[in-house]
Amino acid sequence: MSRTIKIEKKILEKNDVIAARLRDEFTKRKLAVVNIMSSPGAGKTTLLEETVKKLAGKISIGIIEGDIATDRDARRVEEAGADWVVQINTGGRCHLEAGMVEQALQTAPASLDILIVENIGNLVCPAGFDLGEDEGVMLASLTEGMDKPKKYPGMYRACGTLVINKVDLAPVLEMDVGEFEREALTVNPKLKLFRTSAKRGDGLDEWCGWLGSLVKSE
Amino acid sequence: MSRTIKIEKKILEKNDVIAARLRDEFTKRKLAVVNIMSSPGAGKTTLLEETVKKLAGKISIGIIEGDIATDRDARRVEEAGADWVVQINTGGRCHLEAGMVEQALQTAPASLDILIVENIGNLVCPAGFDLGEDEGVMLASLTEGMDKPKKYPGMYRACGTLVINKVDLAPVLEMDVGEFEREALTVNPKLKLFRTSAKRGDGLDEWCGWLGSLVKSE
Repeated sequence: MSRTIKIEKKILEKNDVIAARLRDEFTKRKLAVVNIMSSPGAGKTTLLEETVKKLAGKISIGIIEGDIATDRDARRVEEAGADWVVQINTGGRCHLEAGMVEQALQTAPASLDILIVENIGNLVCPAGFDLGEDEGVMLASLTEGMDKPKKYPGMYRACGTLVINKVDLAPVLEMDVGEFEREALTVNPKLKLFRTSAKRGDGLDEWCGWLGSLVKSE
Repeated sequence: MSRTIKIEKKILEKNDVIAARLRDEFTKRKLAVVNIMSSPGAGKTTLLEETVKKLAGKISIGIIEGDIATDRDARRVEEAGADWVVQINTGGRCHLEAGMVEQALQTAPASLDILIVENIGNLVCPAGFDLGEDEGVMLASLTEGMDKPKKYPGMYRACGTLVINKVDLAPVLEMDVGEFEREALTVNPKLKLFRTSAKRGDGLDEWCGWLGSLVKSE
């Protein structure tokens, strides 16, 4: 077991070196960067589609889509109106690494205000890999149940912001969004909180307003 | 990149050796073994609670609960009436490995008919680690959306059985369970299919009947 941990440590250290280089590059470009992580199917891409529609014309948005396979998420956010989109297919790997983002960034236009990285749908592994972002955002679907913060503490601690999505289902699930938030705050008391239904539109103004506030002045 | 892949291959090969040993041990014990995998919050533990309640007194069920942290799933299935329960906390690791199951098995009574392993909630990494099971079962929550089979093909191909859970939400999600099944079959045409609502009780008779059919005669 100790051998395995040592190997992982090496990979993580290598990732941190590239992430630090990326962070410098983002600063040079005055580019705000957000890394969105969640379980599969929590609604990351739907949230991004609605985000892009709301912010189009006001902020120049670039999106990196991370998926194991398919390019449908890239096509979806491109059709929604994102200014620049790259699909990364990891071909089986369970998380994005800083090196993948660095490579994708080479074709990004200088005019971008914000870069949103949609990570692989996985509540475990992506938490360990710094991508040089300004903010890690966790998207939780209300349907996952409120035991998840304590069961996946690494992810909840790695992120500064928690968006609870699919709040339109609260009545049918008989769930209290406030209780979910309280559970999350016991694991990470510093979380900024948003409640959204990307499908119905709840909370998108607050979420987009906050994203807009991350943009770095010229 | 190639170095990383080589390392992973080594870990997988080591796992395969232990899995083969485990498979021999399961045969010797006449123990049927199922490895249940899913995204976080798809409803694995709720399904197991209901399964245990239905089969108690007819079949002797052992359960290994895999979680990164907490022992609440073990307590839940124990209270439901499982005959033997072990909680494995991986402390951050994203999947169970055969060695963890082999260690847990040491305290299992010889009287068990079936062993159900609830893997870490993760639609990527557990697919790569054989636990010596007779059958890999994927639990998909309808809420995840039907693009998941093509986006997580490794998991859908690694399993022989697909249980689509939370079908009670189909009307409110405006989703067609049959379409989800067709999507899954395009990725793995050999999948055995079940539809359940662990919460409302749909499909539990079929599911439990099938589990019962796996039991090896004395």
